[in-house]
Amino acid sequence: MTTDRPGVLASVRDDFPRWYQDVLEKAELADNGPVRGTMVIRPYAYAIWERMQAEVDARIKAAGAENVYLPLFIPQSYLEREAEHVEGFSPELAVVTHAGGKELTEPVVVRPTSETVFGEVMAKWVQSHRDLPLLLNQWANVVRWELRPRLFLRTSEFLWQEGHTAHASREDAAAYARRIHLGVYRDFLQEVLAIPALVGVKTRRERFAGAIDTLTCEAMMGDGKALQMATSHELGQNFARAFGITYSDADGVEQTCWTTSWGSSTRMMGGLIMSHGDDRGLQVPPRIAPIQVVVLAVKDDPDVAAATARIAAALTEAGVRVRVDERTNQGFGRRATDWELKGVPVRIEVGPRDVAAGTVTVVRRDRREKAVVAADGVVAAIVETLSALQVEFAASARRRLDERIVDVETLSDARAAAATGFARIPWSVLGEDGERELNEGAVTVRCLQTPDGRIPSGSDAGELVAIVGRSY
Amino acid sequence: MTTDRPGVLASVRDDFPRWYQDVLEKAELADNGPVRGTMVIRPYAYAIWERMQAEVDARIKAAGAENVYLPLFIPQSYLEREAEHVEGFSPELAVVTHAGGKELTEPVVVRPTSETVFGEVMAKWVQSHRDLPLLLNQWANVVRWELRPRLFLRTSEFLWQEGHTAHASREDAAAYARRIHLGVYRDFLQEVLAIPALVGVKTRRERFAGAIDTLTCEAMMGDGKALQMATSHELGQNFARAFGITYSDADGVEQTCWTTSWGSSTRMMGGLIMSHGDDRGLQVPPRIAPIQVVVLAVKDDPDVAAATARIAAALTEAGVRVRVDERTNQGFGRRATDWELKGVPVRIEVGPRDVAAGTVTVVRRDRREKAVVAADGVVAAIVETLSALQVEFAASARRRLDERIVDVETLSDARAAAATGFARIPWSVLGEDGERELNEGAVTVRCLQTPDGRIPSGSDAGELVAIVGRSY
Repeated sequence: MTTDRPGVLASVRDDFPRWYQDVLEKAELADNGPVRGTMVIRPYAYAIWERMQAEVDARIKAAGAENVYLPLFIPQSYLEREAEHVEGFSPELAVVTHAGGKELTEPVVVRPTSETVFGEVMAKWVQSHRDLPLLLNQWANVVRWELRPRLFLRTSEFLWQEGHTAHASREDAAAYARRIHLGVYRDFLQEVLAIPALVGVKTRRERFAGAIDTLTCEAMMGDGKALQMATSHELGQNFARAFGITYSDADGVEQTCWTTSWGSSTRMMGGLIMSHGDDRGLQVPPRIAPIQVVVLAVKDDPDVAAATARIAAALTEAGVRVRVDERTNQGFGRRATDWELKGVPVRIEVGPRDVAAGTVTVVRRDRREKAVVAADGVVAAIVETLSALQVEFAASARRRLDERIVDVETLSDARAAAATGFARIPWSVLGEDGERELNEGAVTVRCLQTPDGRIPSGSDAGELVAIVGRSY
Repeated sequence: MTTDRPGVLASVRDDFPRWYQDVLEKAELADNGPVRGTMVIRPYAYAIWERMQAEVDARIKAAGAENVYLPLFIPQSYLEREAEHVEGFSPELAVVTHAGGKELTEPVVVRPTSETVFGEVMAKWVQSHRDLPLLLNQWANVVRWELRPRLFLRTSEFLWQEGHTAHASREDAAAYARRIHLGVYRDFLQEVLAIPALVGVKTRRERFAGAIDTLTCEAMMGDGKALQMATSHELGQNFARAFGITYSDADGVEQTCWTTSWGSSTRMMGGLIMSHGDDRGLQVPPRIAPIQVVVLAVKDDPDVAAATARIAAALTEAGVRVRVDERTNQGFGRRATDWELKGVPVRIEVGPRDVAAGTVTVVRRDRREKAVVAADGVVAAIVETLSALQVEFAASARRRLDERIVDVETLSDARAAAATGFARIPWSVLGEDGERELNEGAVTVRCLQTPDGRIPSGSDAGELVAIVGRSY
């Protein structure tokens, strides 16, 4: 504990896992629920999640998909329909055996995903080629029993969206999966969360069960580890065959659909925290921040209160999300520290001297730099600062990624690099044997991409690069 | 089946329950889920629900409450803490006994409400009088095992919001419950859904277990029956005592809080359907309609396609929610009927003759009146029509309510009136004995209100009026 830090948090460098736990608690983001592995999402974190949902949802709708709601409960027999599916999930399932005061004839499973129910309804809703593409999405809670829970990253219940689509051709399915992956996920992560995302495909070993290709967005956290932020799967005709999703084509001939699925979850909250946080707490990029600016009244004073209200109104008018903090019965330092913990990007301090001088003090959360600004120029200054901050958040995350990713040519160099970040190694050098060897040391291939960082297409197969690292 | 109806639906007058089922199916609103009592909400209905959520949520936020997310699973022991609570719920509970591949030491219950977990977290989050009022809300799915399910009205799983608040005084709690009840629920129902809501308090018999007062919004459906659309409870100090929600006041003395809770659910979808639907299907008031106007291309023709796109763009520009239907490979009559089934308030038909004449045909869904409108005046005409329709939907629902509610002075007249609508009877005439007698014939007191239709306060107790009717 140095005097430079308020001493409430472990430091990012010394103990990242402890720091993460501290931020969750001190910034009032999340608590453990009463049942092991479950989570209470507190108001401030939930407000961030609501903004994440709105941003991702708008992009999903722009890609033409419609939202539905499918039931929480799934008959156990459904999960046996697709063998690979059960294989992947059964130890994670929560099973309801009693309901309505008695034992059920057939136990029901709490959805680990709604995939099987999507299969059912898609088979019903797709009849003709005119029904294609069928583009569906769902926002819901899902349950996968977790023995080593970690809030936001791995919880027994989490919130997510899962999209499921059916197409007439493999090309159309592949193009749509890429459209979602780049236009929804990567765009949201980079533009809104200011998190640079490496895109690529998973290896056969890491691929989703039943998928012919899994696209992923991988981000580097503050400790150099990887977090998988979203995945999009091309399911080929495997899923459609298991559920009988067929259509009659223009000639009346029955054809099997090509399907995709894709998802992102409250895990992105964990990614946000671990991407931008520092020793003083969370840092929220302006575009996702529920509170972009907090206006702090330094003292209980009518002129200060009037100035505070005037500034807040002017900022709100300009479309800035503002919170006024007039809790002058609490210490100013404590309140300032609290807002830093919560990562509000900009703080405006208004005291009697500021009012007298016709100024305010503007403090950027990232650098903790104070600037005295004329009160009548504060709106323009804030709007400019927020827009600059958004760019700088992204640049700073990109800088860390660039600094901690190295090109290597051997497995041992890859392993060494993964201790502090990522390694880039030619897939022709690594291969499936090398991948297995790295796995033994908890280093995994995060994705395969083209040398210039694109999602590979069939023709790129010869010269792929593997991104390897440790992961959450 | 008369030629005036497309013959796809049962008629509202002849068989309302059948008509309701038909609308759900033919307008593609909802299906039964694979587990009995569960529901698949299809895209069009879910889009309406999303708008309901957004409207209700904005009002809740304007009332100062913040959203949280609490876990789906609750330890069984939690529900035993508040005796009255268990009493009310235990036959409805779904219980998870197995998870993670083995039997759980303590079974967990799938939340029938998050009330008990709210109790827990509120006890933690409230310490000082400075933490009050604590105003929380949650949007989530809940499960109450249902033996006689009916889509949207009574399903084993449903979507809802539940608000829970803690206050320093009874007055503050009472005022907040009223603020939510009138400012969120009644306002939303009347202004957005165009459903007149009778407000009042529940009798002791109908009151929520543990509440000292339950406020309700009661609406009349197309068959004259009542649907409870939302309730708000003053819980006194009962709930706070059960969960230890206390605060230290300004003098440092520990005090027990006064709490409220309030909720609304996907049941409102059922209310929307049964309030405005007619023999041709659903009717959606413009303010809640995901599609306010459908622009139908009558024929596959480049000039028609261009005109259609132009009109859609101009309407979108004006803030109207538009869908273009260019499925000219399907019969025009069939498509028009489909959009009537879905209750899109206004249809614009564009054919080659319209294009040549510089006109379009505008059809109001409610009266099925066609009007020829100059293409360059269509935006103004539509904006005006939508605004008129919103008013007329409300007026028409109000007219039905007024026609089917009668003032009576005896129990037998009340019973007779309840066969086709509601009765208003002085509570001093009815009383708890009369209430019990009516109940035997499935007629219930929907609410008690003042003679001029307000929520009673303590001083109104002498002259209350009971609204009685049959209910869903």
